[in-house]
Amino acid sequence: MLKLFYSPGACSLASHIALEEAGATYEAVRTDTAAGDQRRPEYLAINPKGRVPALVTERGVLTETPAILAFVAQSFPAAGLAPLEDPFAFAEVQAFNSYLCATVHVAHAHRHRGYRWADDPAALADMTRKVPETVGACFRLIEDELLRGPWVMGEAYSICDGYLFTIADWLELDGLDPRSFPKVFAHRERVRARPAVRRALAVENAA
Amino acid sequence: MLKLFYSPGACSLASHIALEEAGATYEAVRTDTAAGDQRRPEYLAINPKGRVPALVTERGVLTETPAILAFVAQSFPAAGLAPLEDPFAFAEVQAFNSYLCATVHVAHAHRHRGYRWADDPAALADMTRKVPETVGACFRLIEDELLRGPWVMGEAYSICDGYLFTIADWLELDGLDPRSFPKVFAHRERVRARPAVRRALAVENAA
Repeated sequence: MLKLFYSPGACSLASHIALEEAGATYEAVRTDTAAGDQRRPEYLAINPKGRVPALVTERGVLTETPAILAFVAQSFPAAGLAPLEDPFAFAEVQAFNSYLCATVHVAHAHRHRGYRWADDPAALADMTRKVPETVGACFRLIEDELLRGPWVMGEAYSICDGYLFTIADWLELDGLDPRSFPKVFAHRERVRARPAVRRALAVENAA
Repeated sequence: MLKLFYSPGACSLASHIALEEAGATYEAVRTDTAAGDQRRPEYLAINPKGRVPALVTERGVLTETPAILAFVAQSFPAAGLAPLEDPFAFAEVQAFNSYLCATVHVAHAHRHRGYRWADDPAALADMTRKVPETVGACFRLIEDELLRGPWVMGEAYSICDGYLFTIADWLELDGLDPRSFPKVFAHRERVRARPAVRRALAVENAA
């Protein structure tokens, strides 16, 4: 059986949502990054990167959100979570997810995880200070160029939507008003209302 | 016809190599990021992110290296650049590429592009100073855990190999001795010797 290691509210929520949308049979295993669970030897044996998500499959462990999302879409094709038969449309899905992973999430991470890239407390404070500007620029691009509506890729819900929802739900933490991005804001609430998303959130938000 | 916008020596080299390995018919268009070409209005009309690579197709423009690499592999299946019929193996390819994109390249970018995440010159200097440590930790993981040999995924050359080559060729710039990572170093020279890679490098290195 698939086993997803997640931390509440982390980017692993995107994989959690995808598994729910796919109707997959899986176990969700809480790994509290705030408590440092991801650096415990038991977890490092599963994912030596010390990050969530990790998806344990019968073939081995998968990491990295864009890879897990595409894997879920390909493993449960009946759920229609990605345009699997159209390489160009699939690449558009992947480009969006790659942007979230490598640019938007990275911009966000400079708020409280600047220690990954600098040591001086003044440098960390300067990174934190700039986050509203950098994350804001990312969401300006998403709002103006990338989000087609009603879903990210247009008429069809896809693995992009739960991922955008996950990161857009950090906007307030990043010092931004989500109403500054009306399409993103409406999309966020549209995703939140989906039954699969409510199920994933209920599990992650449980004590 | 496909048109690849690249900058010499940038991460776009990975897509350039993949197109050569695939035997694709394409045009390579130089976009010199050192000269700021990527911020010119003509280029922003193609890719509003102002980054390379961008791949212009008859269906539209694709960005983000992992997405372009998978697109090339799927569009030219006869080249065997990814395990397209095996979702788990394909996800392993994607997880590796996502790690290069979102972690290794990002660590490297803090050397000279720290202005993306901070403003204070002292903060930028602190980021630059830490790059050998952060990039070194990434390559330690690649050396010890991820690179199977002789190619990244084992016996079959894939889209991961040209991408790892591209980023591993920055090791000296990042203040690291590539011989500290013997498997990565041997892999880098193995990739460099491939005819497709030599062709891509000849174009990028031409004046």
